[in-house]
Amino acid sequence: MVIQMVFENEVIKEIIEKYRRIWAIGHAQSVLGWDMEVNMPKEGITERSVAQGELSVMQQETLLAPKFVELVNKADGLEGLNEYEKGVVRVLKREIRISSSFPPEFLRELSETTSKATAAWTEAKEKNDYDKFAPWLDKIMELAKKGADYLGYEKYPYDALLDLFEEGLTTDEVNAMFEKLEKELKPVLDRILEEGKVPREHPLEKLEYKRENMEKVNKEILKLFGFPLGKRSRIDISPHPFTTEFGIKDVRITTRYEGIDFRRTILSTVHEFGHALYELQQDERFMFSPIRGGVSLGIHESQSRFWENIIGRSVEFAELIYPILQENLPEIKDYTPRDIYNYFNIVRPDFIRTEADVVTYNFHILLRFKLEKIMINEGIKAKDLPELWNDEMEKLLGIRPKSYADGILQDIHWAHGTIGYFPTYSIGTLLSAQIGEYMMKDMPDFGDKVRNAEFEPIKEWLRERVHKYGSIYPPKELLQRSFGEGVNPEYFIRYVKAKYL
Amino acid sequence: MVIQMVFENEVIKEIIEKYRRIWAIGHAQSVLGWDMEVNMPKEGITERSVAQGELSVMQQETLLAPKFVELVNKADGLEGLNEYEKGVVRVLKREIRISSSFPPEFLRELSETTSKATAAWTEAKEKNDYDKFAPWLDKIMELAKKGADYLGYEKYPYDALLDLFEEGLTTDEVNAMFEKLEKELKPVLDRILEEGKVPREHPLEKLEYKRENMEKVNKEILKLFGFPLGKRSRIDISPHPFTTEFGIKDVRITTRYEGIDFRRTILSTVHEFGHALYELQQDERFMFSPIRGGVSLGIHESQSRFWENIIGRSVEFAELIYPILQENLPEIKDYTPRDIYNYFNIVRPDFIRTEADVVTYNFHILLRFKLEKIMINEGIKAKDLPELWNDEMEKLLGIRPKSYADGILQDIHWAHGTIGYFPTYSIGTLLSAQIGEYMMKDMPDFGDKVRNAEFEPIKEWLRERVHKYGSIYPPKELLQRSFGEGVNPEYFIRYVKAKYL
Repeated sequence: MVIQMVFENEVIKEIIEKYRRIWAIGHAQSVLGWDMEVNMPKEGITERSVAQGELSVMQQETLLAPKFVELVNKADGLEGLNEYEKGVVRVLKREIRISSSFPPEFLRELSETTSKATAAWTEAKEKNDYDKFAPWLDKIMELAKKGADYLGYEKYPYDALLDLFEEGLTTDEVNAMFEKLEKELKPVLDRILEEGKVPREHPLEKLEYKRENMEKVNKEILKLFGFPLGKRSRIDISPHPFTTEFGIKDVRITTRYEGIDFRRTILSTVHEFGHALYELQQDERFMFSPIRGGVSLGIHESQSRFWENIIGRSVEFAELIYPILQENLPEIKDYTPRDIYNYFNIVRPDFIRTEADVVTYNFHILLRFKLEKIMINEGIKAKDLPELWNDEMEKLLGIRPKSYADGILQDIHWAHGTIGYFPTYSIGTLLSAQIGEYMMKDMPDFGDKVRNAEFEPIKEWLRERVHKYGSIYPPKELLQRSFGEGVNPEYFIRYVKAKYL
Repeated sequence: MVIQMVFENEVIKEIIEKYRRIWAIGHAQSVLGWDMEVNMPKEGITERSVAQGELSVMQQETLLAPKFVELVNKADGLEGLNEYEKGVVRVLKREIRISSSFPPEFLRELSETTSKATAAWTEAKEKNDYDKFAPWLDKIMELAKKGADYLGYEKYPYDALLDLFEEGLTTDEVNAMFEKLEKELKPVLDRILEEGKVPREHPLEKLEYKRENMEKVNKEILKLFGFPLGKRSRIDISPHPFTTEFGIKDVRITTRYEGIDFRRTILSTVHEFGHALYELQQDERFMFSPIRGGVSLGIHESQSRFWENIIGRSVEFAELIYPILQENLPEIKDYTPRDIYNYFNIVRPDFIRTEADVVTYNFHILLRFKLEKIMINEGIKAKDLPELWNDEMEKLLGIRPKSYADGILQDIHWAHGTIGYFPTYSIGTLLSAQIGEYMMKDMPDFGDKVRNAEFEPIKEWLRERVHKYGSIYPPKELLQRSFGEGVNPEYFIRYVKAKYL
């Protein structure tokens, strides 16, 4: 059955009509944010922050306007809504609930604390002086716990924080996921490192390149993927690559160029392409509505990781891009596509999460999850953390940071007050392997398709099972409906074993 | 006396506090507009237009909120406000008056008509078929007249339209200005063309260049001017060069590169720099307030034309940039700085306004002013216009357009519904010569300063007399206070005579 008009109910139509203003402010916020990362001259920050702050308040006021809330509550009691309409009600009820949870004084305190904590973190990291940051970390964890209380939870305060980033996710679920992962993946990692068949380093890591050449390579790859550059998308440069969407018709990615170790810029571009594709393949009938756009951080990351790990780190992808590299990186002639593959698939325990390979990556997240959990749920204080961090790192990866900058001070997340965010990275990584296995079952010639740049059926498969649903269903329900099961670490473990053993 | 706090009155302070939201929406609108011209992928337009429309409505609602209007009215009756505070009241009363003049149905009709008229104009121009556009032009003039009625006027409906773009400007004033100009400048132009000493063309017009090289030239020139690239400004590329400001600390210009006739990109960059400088040199204490920013289109254009004509077309500027050109345009070795000067100062009657030189430019505006005036004030219809256009063109410049595209269909302004805008171009051009003469009186070594790239005293002079006042005083009062007289064509006529005869 084809539903031409997705919104038929009169109350829902009125909601959609009013929601356009909330959407418009969000659109403006995204453009302001993108511009800030990509273009803004340095001193523009003062005025930009004030504008962003005002727009946030306006957006919240519009969302929480009594008439709008009343309309959403009215819609919530209606019988016979279709799936799209139910999705609208669910998304808006959730947004209203979260947005109305926090008293303004709390938000102000949080905002001031995170600004100061970020400054303290920057200095602490630079000077490798943890004591400068520790009191701020305690303060932030205290506020996060207070925030959890405002939001409400059934079992653990940490549940409320997890739900903010991944709707419906609980501490118990993440516990179960990581327990299985630690139990089964740790021996695999140990075996990989023991056997020494998988390279721990590669001469291509040292190869220098000219930015213009790698820009051409990235654009060629994106062209093979069918990325609608100039039509519905752009690629730009920013220190921390990201994807942003201003709607369905304008989705932009960024990448970075370090001038050395070219797999970083390629895999980062491919990763962001995965995020962008999710937004580009939204159902156009959802335009301007609350069900448009990726449903959660975990599902979004599953899309980026699918393109990065399942496609970008495959041997067929190495074969596919080899001629493009030959044209833009003359030194590549001394290497084969298999060398590229090996270089893209190094396994090497490293202190820094953002440098981690496919196998060790989840252990970095596990470590952070364990610490966040005990800080929030058990009240462990900042002063005890470095020791716990280092012990856990040694236990998981067999290496012990020699500095705080290489250890507990490496991520900006906690200074920003984002607690409960890290697990979504692992959810995405695990799901990407899961989606990969499902797809290969439906598409036995998946590898050939990658090798021959036949990406349309791959994109179509993702659209039909994930993208086209936008935010209609909460993430768990989406997975159940499309795949008959939720996040299951077994697929990722099988993927790693098959790849490396 | 140094006033540290510019806003001291409690009512004004409350206004400024509330105005921040209006400012923020304006900031967002500017970023959205800039991005649309410079970066946006093609299909992004659908969502961008909706967002811009919503933001406009929000901005209007915030400005016209009864409590805000009441506050402004209350402030209007207060005694003892300082100059800054009076400026705030004046600007806001004007904004409120204009913004509340038009009924929503009228604005909707205008917006629909101009969209359709723009499409019709594009087709008409392409096919050189005036009849396709004529009915739309009548419709637009009818709406403009209706708009004038809503705004109110004392003498002529056209006065109301002129005031929209240049506060306080009247038909009688523009008449007087152009009468003098036509009477005195026309014989000068005739003499220039007769004597033939001033070049009508130059081989450098045909010189091709590589975009990257001219980008370097423009950046070097901007560096000499002290343009804070990367710190508080940017230069980008767009088909129609423009300047935009997101506040005092982020002012951006664009330019264009045609690959030939390099004076176009240089003079366009220098022109936009003049606009940008006006915004960059605002008093920082006005930040987020209604008195921040250039006061009118005419005054703004006087700044851009000052840099373009008085500096950019001077012989000293040709000497200053000669070494920069030598480095990036090898063919320049066959020419002297004097050749550059001659090339920058060609006088040649042309059909197209945007291609016009300093002497003929104002005649293009005069022509448009005459037609707008009779359409609005006397109800002349579109069908009679091409003949009137061509006759007037022949009378003023001695050439008669052979196609509509070269004549009446060349500008987009009327299709956009901007009637009463053109005269501000001439006001700016005349004022630039006026300002140039005042400055040279104060600074007898002006030419040496340009030759030696000593731009700081020039910028300081402009700051002290024009920029630092923001929008405190209406344009006429600003001119009276700083220079003791209003727009006076005599200066421009003297400037042209001195330069060309």
